[in-house]
Amino acid sequence: MEMNIALLPGDGIGPEVIAQAVKVVNAVADKFGHQITFQEARTGAAAIDAVGRPYPEETHQICLNSDAVLFGAIGDPKYDNDPSAKVRPEQGLLEMRKRLGLFSNVRPTFTFPSLLHKSPLKRERIEGTDLVFLRELTGGIYFGEPRGRNEQGTKAFDTCVYSVEEIERLARMGFEFAQKRRKLLTCVDKANVLATSRLWRETVQRLAGEYPDVKVEYEFVDAVAMRLVQWPKAYDVLITENLFGDILTDEASVISGSMGLMPSASIGLDTKLFEPIHGSYPQAAGKDIANPLAAVLSAAMMFEYAFELMDEARAISDAVNLSLEKGVVTEDLADGEKAYKTTEVGDWLAAQIA
Amino acid sequence: MEMNIALLPGDGIGPEVIAQAVKVVNAVADKFGHQITFQEARTGAAAIDAVGRPYPEETHQICLNSDAVLFGAIGDPKYDNDPSAKVRPEQGLLEMRKRLGLFSNVRPTFTFPSLLHKSPLKRERIEGTDLVFLRELTGGIYFGEPRGRNEQGTKAFDTCVYSVEEIERLARMGFEFAQKRRKLLTCVDKANVLATSRLWRETVQRLAGEYPDVKVEYEFVDAVAMRLVQWPKAYDVLITENLFGDILTDEASVISGSMGLMPSASIGLDTKLFEPIHGSYPQAAGKDIANPLAAVLSAAMMFEYAFELMDEARAISDAVNLSLEKGVVTEDLADGEKAYKTTEVGDWLAAQIA
Ligand SMILES: CC(C)[C@H](C(=O)O)[C@@H](O)C(=O)O
Ligand SMILES: CC(C)[C@H](C(=O)O)[C@@H](O)C(=O)O
Repeated sequence: MEMNIALLPGDGIGPEVIAQAVKVVNAVADKFGHQITFQEARTGAAAIDAVGRPYPEETHQICLNSDAVLFGAIGDPKYDNDPSAKVRPEQGLLEMRKRLGLFSNVRPTFTFPSLLHKSPLKRERIEGTDLVFLRELTGGIYFGEPRGRNEQGTKAFDTCVYSVEEIERLARMGFEFAQKRRKLLTCVDKANVLATSRLWRETVQRLAGEYPDVKVEYEFVDAVAMRLVQWPKAYDVLITENLFGDILTDEASVISGSMGLMPSASIGLDTKLFEPIHGSYPQAAGKDIANPLAAVLSAAMMFEYAFELMDEARAISDAVNLSLEKGVVTEDLADGEKAYKTTEVGDWLAAQIA
Repeated sequence: MEMNIALLPGDGIGPEVIAQAVKVVNAVADKFGHQITFQEARTGAAAIDAVGRPYPEETHQICLNSDAVLFGAIGDPKYDNDPSAKVRPEQGLLEMRKRLGLFSNVRPTFTFPSLLHKSPLKRERIEGTDLVFLRELTGGIYFGEPRGRNEQGTKAFDTCVYSVEEIERLARMGFEFAQKRRKLLTCVDKANVLATSRLWRETVQRLAGEYPDVKVEYEFVDAVAMRLVQWPKAYDVLITENLFGDILTDEASVISGSMGLMPSASIGLDTKLFEPIHGSYPQAAGKDIANPLAAVLSAAMMFEYAFELMDEARAISDAVNLSLEKGVVTEDLADGEKAYKTTEVGDWLAAQIA
């Protein structure tokens, strides 16, 4: 197969982990006989520093013309504590999601047996956790208008908006995921307070009739924030709006003890984007110590979701599992044993696949 | 001292746990020589069923004329899955908060040594956790206008609004709490996305100069959702807006393993309200099995925050500690040992204080 992949390494450790994902993708391509063309483009602080905008038009065109996008991470602390900064790296991320129509962020949380001891939670609470969030990614309070300040600057406001169509396309994807999994869908909202949440709940209730094999539960976001820690195994597929998804998927990423390993996919109208859920982790940048496994597993998700190439995806996840078993891991996972460099882990995985 | 206390038992297990708090308050009053007048009033589903409104005017007047309000819980499942219900119990709660000006919800999370094993988190992660959230309670997306649907019903919207004054009074309370504690204040926001969050951050940054002894940290809400599970001991005082506070305080309540025990205070312009953070738990209602300790500890907070009577507060918390040590607890804490009834725990505590 010919594949056109846009590479957006971004900021901080982004370039380093993406470089390992590229090694792995190349190894898979060699082994399975695919032709891959990579096109690299700038985003985030790196793009602001270079061309003054966090999501340059050139980058957008490269993404639009790609079959899939591999994304690193963005964000730079020099922008974080300056609330009045005119251009922020995150704006590039939001602009990219919106312009590429990446409406569904798929974030699985699962456990690796060899990493259970890393979790802050007790083993019996998490062993076997296997849930996936579908977070709505192009709507809600992230994009709603009006937003800003009053003239005197004494008041600020944001608007959360959702249309039935936006909810429906995300919800349908949730029902379909559930059908292929354990057939439980949890709709997470705050319908006891928010008008938008009531539209979410109504819409999901209406669609439920079309998916009689899926059991649907409705839970308030605050209750889910509790139950995720108490008993994550209770969940299968969770659907939710943008901001709730931001908070809950990050919370969920901690429970498995494998936060540095969690990949994600963003499914769009025009393309699909794959990225590790960890951030740009600037403190570790340039030191060859960042854990590349989440980026590598994002490449596995790419083969599965963008190209429906399951054997290729499995070749990657098998190699990752083996690296964990054999302790070919970066210092965050080394537990006092020998720690491998970011580049060494990438090389090992590529060799393993070959 | 003469004290005028409004009792709002509410729904579900509310009446049962409030009845135990009353026993304890009476025991304290006898021992320390206070005159207490209780006035009971309806809220929530109980009020809807009786008079068609979840926060009747009569209830409001009773609260306004009180020195403190002891509140149980509200909510009834018959309203939860009917997004189009015209009157919902929660509206009463929100109306009450707004009309009583209860702008700051104080929610401590701390551990009881004898309950650490109940936590889903590992002991070493939580032992010694002692944090307190100040959640803004009368602003933000809970109350902002406009909210609702477009004419065709195909779109819904909510508005998040904050004024500098609203942020400032909550933030100042946060700085003052921090000064009396470990001098660390964490401002939780989403300033990389939301205009309201940027106003929060700016306002807190401006005030910080007036409290040079307090160290201020700024963290995004998604990062806090992670770190609360990873390392809750990192926090001292956290301030945040209404919706983030709803989600994070519930998440935090789980980590100590003592969720059924966590009290809260809502500090207002006209009065102060004290309530257990657990919900109305309808499945347990009427069975004399609900854990009354959170309601009882809310009464302790009342003596401390409404009347500045520290000895009285301590008499209650000492009795609670003793009940935990001696195993005079309801079935949720009994660990296979003898479980006491709700009423028995209340009687025991009252006798202990006397
Ligand atoms: C960086 C930020 C704007 C972003 C978000 O809130 O969506 C991040 O937290 C994420 O989850 O991808
Ligand atoms: C019942 C609901 C409206 C309420 C809230 O969201 O504030 C509750 O969750 C709480 O935290 O007291």
